[in-house]
Amino acid sequence: MDEAAVRNLLDQLQGGQVDPDEVVRRLRLLPFADLGYATVDHHRELRHGVPEAVYGPGKTPAHCVGIISELLSGGGADPDGGGPVVLSRANSEQMAAALTACPNGVASGSTVVWRPAPARPERVVVLTGGTADLPVAEECHAVLDAFGFQATLVSDVGVAGVHRLLARVEEVQAADAVVVVAGMEGALASVVGGLTAAPVVAVPTSVGYGASLGGVTALLAMLSSCASGLAVVGIDNGFGAAFAVWRVLGRRAAP
Amino acid sequence: MDEAAVRNLLDQLQGGQVDPDEVVRRLRLLPFADLGYATVDHHRELRHGVPEAVYGPGKTPAHCVGIISELLSGGGADPDGGGPVVLSRANSEQMAAALTACPNGVASGSTVVWRPAPARPERVVVLTGGTADLPVAEECHAVLDAFGFQATLVSDVGVAGVHRLLARVEEVQAADAVVVVAGMEGALASVVGGLTAAPVVAVPTSVGYGASLGGVTALLAMLSSCASGLAVVGIDNGFGAAFAVWRVLGRRAAP
Amino acid sequence: MDEAAVRNLLDQLQGGQVDPDEVVRRLRLLPFADLGYATVDHHRELRHGVPEAVYGPGKTPAHCVGIISELLSGGGADPDGGGPVVLSRANSEQMAAALTACPNGVASGSTVVWRPAPARPERVVVLTGGTADLPVAEECHAVLDAFGFQATLVSDVGVAGVHRLLARVEEVQAADAVVVVAGMEGALASVVGGLTAAPVVAVPTSVGYGASLGGVTALLAMLSSCASGLAVVGIDNGFGAAFAVWRVLGRRAAP
Amino acid sequence: MDEAAVRNLLDQLQGGQVDPDEVVRRLRLLPFADLGYATVDHHRELRHGVPEAVYGPGKTPAHCVGIISELLSGGGADPDGGGPVVLSRANSEQMAAALTACPNGVASGSTVVWRPAPARPERVVVLTGGTADLPVAEECHAVLDAFGFQATLVSDVGVAGVHRLLARVEEVQAADAVVVVAGMEGALASVVGGLTAAPVVAVPTSVGYGASLGGVTALLAMLSSCASGLAVVGIDNGFGAAFAVWRVLGRRAAP
Amino acid sequence: MDEAAVRNLLDQLQGGQVDPDEVVRRLRLLPFADLGYATVDHHRELRHGVPEAVYGPGKTPAHCVGIISELLSGGGADPDGGGPVVLSRANSEQMAAALTACPNGVASGSTVVWRPAPARPERVVVLTGGTADLPVAEECHAVLDAFGFQATLVSDVGVAGVHRLLARVEEVQAADAVVVVAGMEGALASVVGGLTAAPVVAVPTSVGYGASLGGVTALLAMLSSCASGLAVVGIDNGFGAAFAVWRVLGRRAAP
Amino acid sequence: MDEAAVRNLLDQLQGGQVDPDEVVRRLRLLPFADLGYATVDHHRELRHGVPEAVYGPGKTPAHCVGIISELLSGGGADPDGGGPVVLSRANSEQMAAALTACPNGVASGSTVVWRPAPARPERVVVLTGGTADLPVAEECHAVLDAFGFQATLVSDVGVAGVHRLLARVEEVQAADAVVVVAGMEGALASVVGGLTAAPVVAVPTSVGYGASLGGVTALLAMLSSCASGLAVVGIDNGFGAAFAVWRVLGRRAAP
Amino acid sequence: MDEAAVRNLLDQLQGGQVDPDEVVRRLRLLPFADLGYATVDHHRELRHGVPEAVYGPGKTPAHCVGIISELLSGGGADPDGGGPVVLSRANSEQMAAALTACPNGVASGSTVVWRPAPARPERVVVLTGGTADLPVAEECHAVLDAFGFQATLVSDVGVAGVHRLLARVEEVQAADAVVVVAGMEGALASVVGGLTAAPVVAVPTSVGYGASLGGVTALLAMLSSCASGLAVVGIDNGFGAAFAVWRVLGRRAAP
Amino acid sequence: MDEAAVRNLLDQLQGGQVDPDEVVRRLRLLPFADLGYATVDHHRELRHGVPEAVYGPGKTPAHCVGIISELLSGGGADPDGGGPVVLSRANSEQMAAALTACPNGVASGSTVVWRPAPARPERVVVLTGGTADLPVAEECHAVLDAFGFQATLVSDVGVAGVHRLLARVEEVQAADAVVVVAGMEGALASVVGGLTAAPVVAVPTSVGYGASLGGVTALLAMLSSCASGLAVVGIDNGFGAAFAVWRVLGRRAAP
Repeated sequence: MDEAAVRNLLDQLQGGQVDPDEVVRRLRLLPFADLGYATVDHHRELRHGVPEAVYGPGKTPAHCVGIISELLSGGGADPDGGGPVVLSRANSEQMAAALTACPNGVASGSTVVWRPAPARPERVVVLTGGTADLPVAEECHAVLDAFGFQATLVSDVGVAGVHRLLARVEEVQAADAVVVVAGMEGALASVVGGLTAAPVVAVPTSVGYGASLGGVTALLAMLSSCASGLAVVGIDNGFGAAFAVWRVLGRRAAP
Repeated sequence: MDEAAVRNLLDQLQGGQVDPDEVVRRLRLLPFADLGYATVDHHRELRHGVPEAVYGPGKTPAHCVGIISELLSGGGADPDGGGPVVLSRANSEQMAAALTACPNGVASGSTVVWRPAPARPERVVVLTGGTADLPVAEECHAVLDAFGFQATLVSDVGVAGVHRLLARVEEVQAADAVVVVAGMEGALASVVGGLTAAPVVAVPTSVGYGASLGGVTALLAMLSSCASGLAVVGIDNGFGAAFAVWRVLGRRAAP
Repeated sequence: MDEAAVRNLLDQLQGGQVDPDEVVRRLRLLPFADLGYATVDHHRELRHGVPEAVYGPGKTPAHCVGIISELLSGGGADPDGGGPVVLSRANSEQMAAALTACPNGVASGSTVVWRPAPARPERVVVLTGGTADLPVAEECHAVLDAFGFQATLVSDVGVAGVHRLLARVEEVQAADAVVVVAGMEGALASVVGGLTAAPVVAVPTSVGYGASLGGVTALLAMLSSCASGLAVVGIDNGFGAAFAVWRVLGRRAAP
Repeated sequence: MDEAAVRNLLDQLQGGQVDPDEVVRRLRLLPFADLGYATVDHHRELRHGVPEAVYGPGKTPAHCVGIISELLSGGGADPDGGGPVVLSRANSEQMAAALTACPNGVASGSTVVWRPAPARPERVVVLTGGTADLPVAEECHAVLDAFGFQATLVSDVGVAGVHRLLARVEEVQAADAVVVVAGMEGALASVVGGLTAAPVVAVPTSVGYGASLGGVTALLAMLSSCASGLAVVGIDNGFGAAFAVWRVLGRRAAP
Repeated sequence: MDEAAVRNLLDQLQGGQVDPDEVVRRLRLLPFADLGYATVDHHRELRHGVPEAVYGPGKTPAHCVGIISELLSGGGADPDGGGPVVLSRANSEQMAAALTACPNGVASGSTVVWRPAPARPERVVVLTGGTADLPVAEECHAVLDAFGFQATLVSDVGVAGVHRLLARVEEVQAADAVVVVAGMEGALASVVGGLTAAPVVAVPTSVGYGASLGGVTALLAMLSSCASGLAVVGIDNGFGAAFAVWRVLGRRAAP
Repeated sequence: MDEAAVRNLLDQLQGGQVDPDEVVRRLRLLPFADLGYATVDHHRELRHGVPEAVYGPGKTPAHCVGIISELLSGGGADPDGGGPVVLSRANSEQMAAALTACPNGVASGSTVVWRPAPARPERVVVLTGGTADLPVAEECHAVLDAFGFQATLVSDVGVAGVHRLLARVEEVQAADAVVVVAGMEGALASVVGGLTAAPVVAVPTSVGYGASLGGVTALLAMLSSCASGLAVVGIDNGFGAAFAVWRVLGRRAAP
Repeated sequence: MDEAAVRNLLDQLQGGQVDPDEVVRRLRLLPFADLGYATVDHHRELRHGVPEAVYGPGKTPAHCVGIISELLSGGGADPDGGGPVVLSRANSEQMAAALTACPNGVASGSTVVWRPAPARPERVVVLTGGTADLPVAEECHAVLDAFGFQATLVSDVGVAGVHRLLARVEEVQAADAVVVVAGMEGALASVVGGLTAAPVVAVPTSVGYGASLGGVTALLAMLSSCASGLAVVGIDNGFGAAFAVWRVLGRRAAP
Repeated sequence: MDEAAVRNLLDQLQGGQVDPDEVVRRLRLLPFADLGYATVDHHRELRHGVPEAVYGPGKTPAHCVGIISELLSGGGADPDGGGPVVLSRANSEQMAAALTACPNGVASGSTVVWRPAPARPERVVVLTGGTADLPVAEECHAVLDAFGFQATLVSDVGVAGVHRLLARVEEVQAADAVVVVAGMEGALASVVGGLTAAPVVAVPTSVGYGASLGGVTALLAMLSSCASGLAVVGIDNGFGAAFAVWRVLGRRAAP
């Protein structure tokens, strides 16, 4: 509920069109929906430009269906409009239930997208250190796609053969943002950070074994990078990386 | 064995009604039952007002049945009276065996309660950061219910949309105690701690992945909270949170 | 700013006594003071019953003086009234500066208290595992004292000689709340938790060396206690323990 | 050495103006200066728009002077032009030596800036959880300032009194980027992330003790935030946060 | 190969009964058997009084059979004599294969014992904190039994009801060694260590969840105990605890 | 692309045989193959003498087949020549698919080798602390074999019976390199490091339980060894150990 | 207060020589002295055969003097008798104050001993991995000496030159107990554990840097040892190791 | 004592030139010197080709002097011959004492070398990520120098400006071994590992702050490198890296 709305409400109060009890009630009537098991935040689209995403793990299929339906309904607002609704990290039961109840979604890996945004011109390159990082990179790519960005996925350009990355330098340097998805020691993020001045979002993955510590090593390495200003998100958090890009590029007006 | 009992025993000794050997034997006869695999602490009800709870993991179904039966028997004391007996974290075999042998229990999630306490007036609000925190919150709620409290569960009011919490502020501020159940970064506990002067019990959960480190992140965050005086319990320990509330509110006389 | 105040403000608006711009301004005029380096929260006393405490580390002596003076001034409210103002973990420069500028404070260890609360009847026992835990226990005791509680400090009753604790059982069991301050393995908290039904606040300390890991061992042990419902606070956080007791006992009316 | 330069060099080769040995030599003549103890990267300004920064710890005062002088010289390029040169985390000997040798620098805390960039219109708000986070926030602010941004520092708006933050919501929501500097449990980042759609750079600090684990708790909490798309940098890394903002906003043309 | 044997060998050499090549060969002929996948240490019985134990995990059933057969054969020495052979942590396939090939073994939990030692008079009490610690305690008990000790298992006497332990004090104080098996916070070890002057072997178990960190909490707590001189073994290492007792009591002559 | 090739290309340019655009194109044409999901590094054989190895986990069977086929094809170079191609840590589906598509591979444990190198004279001894370390040692042995070394595997010579190792001292001291594979406390590496002056590669394994922490204990112990100059690789990384040996011995000409 | 005393007291009660109030009072009169800052456990000598030791850190010099004086006084019992009183980890102020007030103590390193026990025949060998482990070994040796054992210190026999240890094998194998003091990777404990059947107490030290993690590496390695039945104590805990030996050997009657 | 010596001794025994007691005595007379506080391993030079190094921390200046003098004396062997004696990590007192007592040493940083080896032809390149890594690199360089290698130190070629490293590729690729010294995220090791087939020794340093965790991050990253076969040594262990190079190159005959 933004300040203009508050001011308008108070004008109505002053004009006698509403009474104080009503104002108190409405101040509390922020746009969310209480489903019992979830408090769906319809206001988030106003604040962020895109609706709340639905994170699958720990929810029953019925929870998923209920929350997605509520988001698609817009809380009673114009049901035809609204931004992309994303279900992430869904298992097969959750996906089946959600796609049956809300049939227009498109699945990609463990991500489902409803009502994708129209295409925008910004270019985002998603790089992976190795083939095993693909599932996280694909989650990121699917969400970038849902937000309308021109997203490209370049796989397996880790630093053990740095010429593979150097061959893509132009593409990397032309991007409006770069997402680096890498496990093991995550050194790709540092090299990319040194090659481009654009925002670099670093996603550590749990790829590797032993001393990789389930992604903690890549995470710490990215946070300690000698390349300045890397924006690090959590381990395996492809969605979060896409959302960090949204924060950077999403508010700009399309040309 | 409280001091009055000791004194009474010594009076009997002085009066020649018992002999020293008997006194030594009785001093050792504290009220517990040795089942071989378990030493059931009947005295706990005297000390705490509620009997020992039975924690399922690592016990065979037969262990569970034996201990619950013993607790319900009260160690030979009045079998009709006594406080709530709780089996927590039970798997399906344990629950089936226990409910067959002791048929009056009521199951809720992985918790079973026999002989719930009569209703008491104190209000306890259990908040969750997200829907995935529900199993832990429900364990807490079931035990609060067993203890007789007026417990309410409000789900999915995490700080990413802080207005959802602010809309429930009156309810939170009216509670005699608040339990905050949250995973990921657990920030809900800090915000709630700033909003109410009542006891706040913070329960970190293992919800999240990667940098959430199985609940350690939420745990450390709650312990480091800038809101003073949060009472933190162990990760996913819904039972412990309910018991911490019992310590705070349970000894007061009901009006 | 509680609901009554909002309602009153809106009544004035409806009655034409204030205009909407003024209402928006006042809604934002929550009671805090912006000192530049600090945003002093005068509203906290309304929410919690006691003012914000001042944590020394990282602040210059001038910061401390400024914040304490502001808190004592009550933000322009009645300067004679108001609850206890506490400066904790102060070094000698901070203490000297604060006591010079605000001369009525009383120092105890690294804690200074201004305007202590009147005595209340609730009894709180603070136990330590060893003599080396005294500084943390004394911080807790000083703050409990500032809040008006009847606080007793019993030192060096660790479980390596459990009869020392058993000799104080009556005192412990008569307390309205117990604070257990212990380093090393922190086992005292578990034993005390088994002996009393009252709220037990467990404070791990950094006493010990090697495998004590600076208090982490005691912290984890207290969180994993087989005694149910312990309320754990952060390592060495004597202030936090006292505040947790305040949450439990502070709102009750004095007899 | 960008592609246009390579192409130009090859054109000269084809035209017989240079011979192959010269080309091999020049391909290796990337713009850096080898000082023995340091390999100063003059090319970085071409890639990033700002020169390499000088991180003080572990360098002798002479190292600092040598590197800063080299950067200010631009490697023989136009000595009057070039972007801001930053010395960060300098101790007093390093600062004294650097300011004597290169007298036009301006010191602020442990940061010294030479040749600051002209003012740009983008607004950046730097928030701190508490007063003790100020040194890190000031490092960030000084570097943002050196880069020409309109930077504002708002101190001590941690979530234990969330109304303090809510009172600044308009300012936060109007910013082109927000930096959140917070220790302890770092919850401020989550709340701010929920309030604005702009890029949020989260800087965990080592403020706190015990379970704060020197900033690891705040770091993990920010990485695990329920607010999506936070860009996290390393513990106490105020410089890195400013540089992450530079990546986001620096390449846009000033209006 | 003890010194007497070396000396005897050298006497033979001096007497011309063996030649130098033979002596070199025999010096290398220490009593072990190379099975390819294992190097069975027959000499261990000479050094330790009991043969090498066979740790199941990571071995195929055929590995287990081969090693056990070799140990029972005594490396060609008197096949009727020799100390107890123990297979620990065996899965069902390993146990079945071993008992088929070497039929006189006796299984108890995941432990199998062949050729148990004759009874000895020393008394060892094995205590557990809770019923869930039983599998580790039973492994310890089975091995103590194989070594011939008078071992008693007392289960579920954790410190949350310390009177249960106090009721067994005489038994504990009469033991020649005490093994304390406890998970969660492991406080039982500290209390027992304070009650007896006998050797106390503390075995942390992985019982518990969340902050118990798979036994690390109990391990650290036992190592940090305020009761002096506890002998700690690895997490869940019931076998190791029994062997530590063997080191203490095993070399004494039976009365 | 080595310097000779660059120089040759530039000579051609100067001679008018190629034009600048072609040179730019070719400079970018480094020998790798972009399969979409993988960027196969054909140049690695030139740099390292052996082709890139294929790490199984996280790849689909089709990924494995595609990459192995590409490596065996040599990127269009002489298909009959080329060094060994190794698939490591393959599961049964990956192995079946790879051996069907590329039939000349030889499987050993979870490793498959195509086109093994001809035999070389260097001797490498692979030692294990226990039988359970065999799978890691066998991976190492299979790769050493693929590289042509004379590799010997000596199992179960851990330091609890140090005479077993001493009996093999000559063999160990005669080796050109020694690989020590050990879990638990990994002490074997220290003892071996003290016995030989040859390169010692230490491989910690995840064998053990509890305080072995999944191999972290052995890793830290090997890194902290009092024997100087041990070369440590990651936990369970048998392949990496073999490759470290390749770096040491592989470039020497065979006699 | 042992059972005989209780029985005697009850006999007196039965005989009318004492009244019940007196018995309750005496039951509570366990032999400890409450000094305010410390609760000195005079009963410990009865339970353990030696008095409580005084751990220096965190105590003021006055605390040390008070506790030592109390222990030497025996709580009013025979002041000439009693076991050794030990002050450990004392700093120079504490030592000076203690030796001034209680002049018959003998200092050795940071340990002071009053009233050492008469010599006993048991032999204890204390081994160190390196010279830097000496301070911890000397603390252990001083306490063993105070207890009357025949203690020998053998320094710098780490496994990087295992023949140094083998040369002392007879001495080690003749000992009644062996204490191994080692930092870095602590492998000495494993090798010694394999060489003797006697009790081996392993003391990890904080010697080393980097991956030694302040002694945690040695600690974990000793707990994970492939030599069975090592008794591990805390990092740098030389006193604890000596006390563990006391538990093993101290109760045996001297010949 | 190698086998030839044993055989010779036995021949003498057989020939009656020595008696068995003498042989036993001599077998135990391995070449080490017992100084009381240290057991100097003169045999190490025979096993390793270079004498034991002296690690300064934890030793008194007198300890250092004693051990160095003993090593230089060669245990009574030819005092003019023998390999380099190295004192590492010495503080100023230790250095002064050692250089006074043994005047021919040459100090470099915290390293002192006596009797350096003659020059050998092998080339070793030591690279650092940044200027702050110099102290560790210089320790490594000094020891390589003492061993006679042609060692070059190239500082500050971290991956944030990867062209700096690429400009030195020929030098790196021509080396017989490469040492990479890097803190923060340590990514330089991975890139170098991909560029050369020679042995790469990776030395993590404690350079960096916050998430660098005192070198643990670089350590884990190097162990998890996507470049195969890196040989990792402990944090800040420049000496160990030089010794690992000695193991690789030291045994080869000089041309």
